[in-house]
Amino acid sequence: MTLEAIRYRDGSLWILNQLLLPHETQFEQIRSVQDGWDAIKSMKVRGAPAIAIVGCLSLAVELRTGPEREGAELVDFVRESVAHLTSARPTAVNMGRAAGELVEFTERESQERSGQELKESVIGWIEAMLERDVSDNKKLGNFGAQHILSGVPRGRVTLLTHCNTGALATAGYGTALGVVRSLHALGRLERVLFTETRPYCQGARLTAYELTAERIPATLIADSCAALAMRDQGVTAVVVGADRVVANGDTANKVGTYQLAIAAKHHGIPFYVAAPSTSCDLSLESGRLIEIEERPDSELTHINGQPLAAPGVEVWNPAFDVTPHQLITGGIITELGVFLPSELQAALTGRLTAL
Amino acid sequence: MTLEAIRYRDGSLWILNQLLLPHETQFEQIRSVQDGWDAIKSMKVRGAPAIAIVGCLSLAVELRTGPEREGAELVDFVRESVAHLTSARPTAVNMGRAAGELVEFTERESQERSGQELKESVIGWIEAMLERDVSDNKKLGNFGAQHILSGVPRGRVTLLTHCNTGALATAGYGTALGVVRSLHALGRLERVLFTETRPYCQGARLTAYELTAERIPATLIADSCAALAMRDQGVTAVVVGADRVVANGDTANKVGTYQLAIAAKHHGIPFYVAAPSTSCDLSLESGRLIEIEERPDSELTHINGQPLAAPGVEVWNPAFDVTPHQLITGGIITELGVFLPSELQAALTGRLTAL
Repeated sequence: MTLEAIRYRDGSLWILNQLLLPHETQFEQIRSVQDGWDAIKSMKVRGAPAIAIVGCLSLAVELRTGPEREGAELVDFVRESVAHLTSARPTAVNMGRAAGELVEFTERESQERSGQELKESVIGWIEAMLERDVSDNKKLGNFGAQHILSGVPRGRVTLLTHCNTGALATAGYGTALGVVRSLHALGRLERVLFTETRPYCQGARLTAYELTAERIPATLIADSCAALAMRDQGVTAVVVGADRVVANGDTANKVGTYQLAIAAKHHGIPFYVAAPSTSCDLSLESGRLIEIEERPDSELTHINGQPLAAPGVEVWNPAFDVTPHQLITGGIITELGVFLPSELQAALTGRLTAL
Repeated sequence: MTLEAIRYRDGSLWILNQLLLPHETQFEQIRSVQDGWDAIKSMKVRGAPAIAIVGCLSLAVELRTGPEREGAELVDFVRESVAHLTSARPTAVNMGRAAGELVEFTERESQERSGQELKESVIGWIEAMLERDVSDNKKLGNFGAQHILSGVPRGRVTLLTHCNTGALATAGYGTALGVVRSLHALGRLERVLFTETRPYCQGARLTAYELTAERIPATLIADSCAALAMRDQGVTAVVVGADRVVANGDTANKVGTYQLAIAAKHHGIPFYVAAPSTSCDLSLESGRLIEIEERPDSELTHINGQPLAAPGVEVWNPAFDVTPHQLITGGIITELGVFLPSELQAALTGRLTAL
């Protein structure tokens, strides 16, 4: 059974509080857009796809339970809500992209519908996001698994991944961990090595939680140990997720991804980015244009509220980095197929189909 | 004033317990070889040069305060003690090297001296290690600073370093941090970026403690952030310490060093190893022959005794890695000068002098 981190039933929304993982499994109810913003900002929910889904579902909840809004008033409410939600974590594209699409949809619908019907139509659009994310991830996972196996006629493969890109980062199944799940389901996964992912330890806390729960063979390593693992542990491919893939294939993802891509290149190991099309942002030409979020010093100087570093030390704590497309040597794995960075734009705009 | 982590006065030995840093500054007395072994094994003292010095000084203390031993009995006691001390941490060469030299010295002296005179001669040899380490580090620091500045006619330089190689890892001043101290003393250091150094956090705990105490401009980064720092923060050179440099220049050092060297190469940034000749082991031809210590899983799964990772997860936790000499593009900085890996053997055996 796959872990469920976002529970949406009969119009009520509960999320698994990831700040308490792996030691406590506690769901919290999200009753409003402000609750959604708070959960995203405080990282009770994280992972680019999950942020967008929880953000939009918090709006659906408030639409259903809040005061009745008509026509332009409802459109304004949607517009203001998604702008607020997008501000909570700026680097991941998914929320911003969903925001744009949802506003556009709402404006269009408001020409034709009104009252209860308009509201239900907007809520329906949001609810469809949740289902589509899981089915897209499963497609993506299978495309990725097949692509990696195409170079390995028999036997099992060893992957290396970073951060958490699984059921806890998406609506379910996962992106890079979706590829891991698909390979495991095919009986072709020897082992996945995964990094601790400082400072927030998404690997040690969340990926470890998912993989041990599902009994997928997995080994935790320090972030610093990845190059050594590539040299000594028979890594077949490195697969990571993405917070934003731009038109030329440059990819923003959890800090450390760039370093992994350099090490993979040095060892001649294919480096893949697993990203549903909702994580792709063709409006930006190059990764240089991506805004990189800096997180508080305390993530690095403290652990579980306990001081770790010497007091008074200066800190630089960017949460993400940008991996240039030249280092994405394996390809970009999407729900439409696996593409070279140079093919991505054509593929996502329907001018190229998966091979 | 430089931090003093090993206090040796009138035959009594006290060490700063580094397990309690940076939050508590507590010295503990070492009264015997077994106390020395325990302090090294438990990492109350760490850093390749400091391990050798504390190990040998613990022997000097026991020689002075323990039962009288004569001739062959004293030689045997020295031989057994240093073999035991060497077993505590196998990767660093310094203790093993000091062990061999001390046994040889004791055997030779025992031909000519006896009783109190033999004992004092052995103790004198050990005490000289302490002074020589500091003076060697100062020479090394100056050679390294001059070499780095030779490519930078004016202005300040930014270094990146890993782990802790300062006064807390040596008898004083430091190796890679000795280079940092020398550049700072010359007024030519813009800033040193230093990694947290998981899992043991020697960077966040110890390097931060030293550098903030001495007001050297310094910034703590996550290990995963190093490649990004090289790209965006104007890093002039990467300088790390060494647990063991072998004949061809291959270098064992804290895990993550290999990854930093790959990233430095990718960015065209010179990569230096700072290692006194006592950290060089010409008896091994290649880094493949170096024994790499694996540390307990709990270093990665727990922090300050608190569980961090999901329970039941498998862990791979090698404490060191080996950087091949091809990646040491800046050179190996010793107290005799800065050498290319290919020159090291000739330089240390007196067949080449520093340029």
